[in-house]
Amino acid sequence: MNPENIDIVLVHTTHSGNIGGVARAMKNMGLKRLTLVAPLAYPAPEATWRAASAGDILECARVVSTLDEAIADCQFVVGTSARERRIPWPIQDARRCADRVVHLSNTERVAILFGREDRGLLNDELQRCNLHCHIPTHEGYASLNLAMAVQIVAYELRMAQLQDTTALAEDAEWDTPFSSGADMSRFYGHLEQTLVDIGFLNPDAPRQLMPRLRRLFNRVRLDEMELNILRGVLTETQKSARSGQDH
Amino acid sequence: MNPENIDIVLVHTTHSGNIGGVARAMKNMGLKRLTLVAPLAYPAPEATWRAASAGDILECARVVSTLDEAIADCQFVVGTSARERRIPWPIQDARRCADRVVHLSNTERVAILFGREDRGLLNDELQRCNLHCHIPTHEGYASLNLAMAVQIVAYELRMAQLQDTTALAEDAEWDTPFSSGADMSRFYGHLEQTLVDIGFLNPDAPRQLMPRLRRLFNRVRLDEMELNILRGVLTETQKSARSGQDH
Repeated sequence: MNPENIDIVLVHTTHSGNIGGVARAMKNMGLKRLTLVAPLAYPAPEATWRAASAGDILECARVVSTLDEAIADCQFVVGTSARERRIPWPIQDARRCADRVVHLSNTERVAILFGREDRGLLNDELQRCNLHCHIPTHEGYASLNLAMAVQIVAYELRMAQLQDTTALAEDAEWDTPFSSGADMSRFYGHLEQTLVDIGFLNPDAPRQLMPRLRRLFNRVRLDEMELNILRGVLTETQKSARSGQDH
Repeated sequence: MNPENIDIVLVHTTHSGNIGGVARAMKNMGLKRLTLVAPLAYPAPEATWRAASAGDILECARVVSTLDEAIADCQFVVGTSARERRIPWPIQDARRCADRVVHLSNTERVAILFGREDRGLLNDELQRCNLHCHIPTHEGYASLNLAMAVQIVAYELRMAQLQDTTALAEDAEWDTPFSSGADMSRFYGHLEQTLVDIGFLNPDAPRQLMPRLRRLFNRVRLDEMELNILRGVLTETQKSARSGQDH
């Protein structure tokens, strides 16, 4: 595990105290990098107080205004989710997720997203993820406190790191780097526009088309070469669509 | 796992908010029974607030004044501990502990002890335990928040429960019930007095004699028949020590 390559990303956090609790939970388990996407109130004294001796994590925390900015340089994005989704997404429990992340972090940038206290991650945020991570809470009271959820995931990362002696090397042996979040974001924009251009996607009635395509490509993880090929295909498709309209 | 047989015991908790955080962490993972040993301030609004929808756990919580009272009816006692001990004690990480506790709870009463926010469990409290439980935090910042520690242990219990299909039956198949905490407490008092009576233990310079004996008997777990035998031996020993003094 390389903690420099693992980013805990808190999306639209409402209670500043939770940000401090998250910082402490991270440091207790050897994590370092915290990114805050549009927190409601930060910096805040409650955060500093609850961070206890993890003030250094808060000081180094990145504050950004959009999720896209937060994951721009990440090749693997995990979203924590308690809820059933409209479209089933690849999902693993925190233990298996941690095995994967510990391994990937040796060579790639990984982001783990945690959503709002009241509603978690929204569908369009979850659709930016390669993998969803599930903490199997009890059905009688499934709603974990935000800092508690981070604590459990961070603990599983630590446990996986301590046991990470015989990890598979399949991902690390890949011959081409995997695409970053920024590349993928541009790709999806390009894909969506192309689908509109060719009349396949109606912007006024998009249904679940883009979510399903996101799920497909996020599941397979595109490497940079594959992405370049697809972008080339899209560009060519747009050209022919336009020239078709010209006639 | 039988949650009715698992007691989370908080010893001398200082911050009432943590008690609420513990209640929520428990309910999130399907635990029910909370015992508070001489909390500094309880009931308290911070506890209620942080418990969120786990107010029922607080309402049913037992408040007692001594640890002995808390574990009187328990046959297996686990103490959470971050520190190295003067005398090494049987110790397992939270994952293996949870396997054991989930299994034992089907037939016996189990207590899991969590100490003070600043100092954890004291040596004499840890010496009441059959097993110490260790959460492998990072060396850079090993001090977990109390509610976070409970969250991790409760999470491991939940994970163990979900996987508890092929558990060993060695403990459950025992032919005689194991001794309770109250029985063991009386036994240790009897043992100590007997050692004084026979001049083996100097109360003014006890050194580590009793801790080492506690470790021995707690490790082996005495069943009720074995305990009766030992108590009989002690009684006889005391009688002969006294009659020796008479002559």
